[in-house]
Amino acid sequence: MSTPSSTIGVFDSGVGGLTVLRAIHRLLPHHDTAYLGDTARVPYGTRSAETVVRYAENAARFLASREDLSVFVIACNTASAVAVEAVARAIPVPVIGVIEPTAREAALGSPRGRIGVVGTRGTIASGAYQRALTRLRPGVEVLAEACPLFVPLAEEGWTAKGDEVAELVARRYLSGLVSRDIDTLILGCTHYPLLEDVIRGVVGPGVRLADASEAVAREVAAVVGGRSAPPSASARGARYYVTDLPKGFAAVAERFLGAPIDAPIEVDL
Amino acid sequence: MSTPSSTIGVFDSGVGGLTVLRAIHRLLPHHDTAYLGDTARVPYGTRSAETVVRYAENAARFLASREDLSVFVIACNTASAVAVEAVARAIPVPVIGVIEPTAREAALGSPRGRIGVVGTRGTIASGAYQRALTRLRPGVEVLAEACPLFVPLAEEGWTAKGDEVAELVARRYLSGLVSRDIDTLILGCTHYPLLEDVIRGVVGPGVRLADASEAVAREVAAVVGGRSAPPSASARGARYYVTDLPKGFAAVAERFLGAPIDAPIEVDL
Repeated sequence: MSTPSSTIGVFDSGVGGLTVLRAIHRLLPHHDTAYLGDTARVPYGTRSAETVVRYAENAARFLASREDLSVFVIACNTASAVAVEAVARAIPVPVIGVIEPTAREAALGSPRGRIGVVGTRGTIASGAYQRALTRLRPGVEVLAEACPLFVPLAEEGWTAKGDEVAELVARRYLSGLVSRDIDTLILGCTHYPLLEDVIRGVVGPGVRLADASEAVAREVAAVVGGRSAPPSASARGARYYVTDLPKGFAAVAERFLGAPIDAPIEVDL
Repeated sequence: MSTPSSTIGVFDSGVGGLTVLRAIHRLLPHHDTAYLGDTARVPYGTRSAETVVRYAENAARFLASREDLSVFVIACNTASAVAVEAVARAIPVPVIGVIEPTAREAALGSPRGRIGVVGTRGTIASGAYQRALTRLRPGVEVLAEACPLFVPLAEEGWTAKGDEVAELVARRYLSGLVSRDIDTLILGCTHYPLLEDVIRGVVGPGVRLADASEAVAREVAAVVGGRSAPPSASARGARYYVTDLPKGFAAVAERFLGAPIDAPIEVDL
């Protein structure tokens, strides 16, 4: 009997995509996964679109050659904004980016069509969320705000509700959106779910948070539901590939994944 | 009459080195300068030493081919830690890194030999300041602390004394050093002079701040004093080369240089 492919591939420029992997592990606990973090070339946000496309194609070809993929998830917002089509041409596997599923969830779920988007400077400047939201729900009001300090806060682990620095930073970035009466806030960066409690404290209970990781995990479940092998004793679990292994990587990775990471395999792309 | 070379070259992975250029402009206002920021490949802190050496050699060869250099300053801490020797072999021009002059000033000026060092995670992990200080003043006590949030604070412009976020972050990073009774603090990252007022507020008036930009500018003055042309009407001022020109670059650059920047020239390395 031929075995259908069963490994869910997740690619990010660094460690942020582990929040997406974590949501996939929660929703599909018996599926095999392989994560690729391009830690040698992180961050992508400052590179040209051509360069990001080339990096993403390389990453996709590498992971498809190493693993028997059922789906390839681009968990990086910058790469999702520019490289989904090119990657889909490069490998014979369904490709999912983070922007489309997250924007769809936000656009369809927003009660009054007033949607805030937070992300890195690069993601906000690309306008990718703004375009997707307007396409999915014409007439929607989109208020975008770049929050450059959220990524280092998450990487330092200063993310607990009650952390004075985190709360002050979140208030400074978000109070403008709150005062303009958003009903939904897109966390448009894979680092931001770690700050969810702090962000929730600032925007209040009435604002829906649209989290890329949950939306993407549901899309992955829909795609692999009809394609992947059923859970089996031969599943090999989770594998991690990185292009560079900086000091302190394991601790940061554990913070994002919510559990210790298996020894990552260092590879050249 | 032959004209001796007269352009001071300053190289950094991004915009941080503009604080060094600013100190050079103040000390040597009539000298021609050329700045090269490798903004397409910033930050260097997460790359391997071999890669950083290669980038720095490329940068030095490029600037030496474009400009008639009297000195080449490596204003990037990461590159200074690993690439000064290699760059000195690559171009026929005196090469100055930031670590040696800054460590010397701190080691010789410290009243009791208790020196704190703050920098990026990469710089602190490299141990370069710790080694230089111990070599220059055996028996010195060195206390090092990585401060990852200082760079994004500086790039956001949240640097004024009284800025709640900046003061809270500075207290969190520095109070351990203060309680261990340092008499000198090395600002071991070119971004940190922008936070000098905030840092001074936390460490108090009794701690000497050793600032790379001032120490390096004095070293440059010593080197070019005997080599460069006297100020002349033909001086062409300051030129800026970057390898990528992200949105918002001019505003960030102005914050670091303390004055608007001339239109940068985009180049490929």
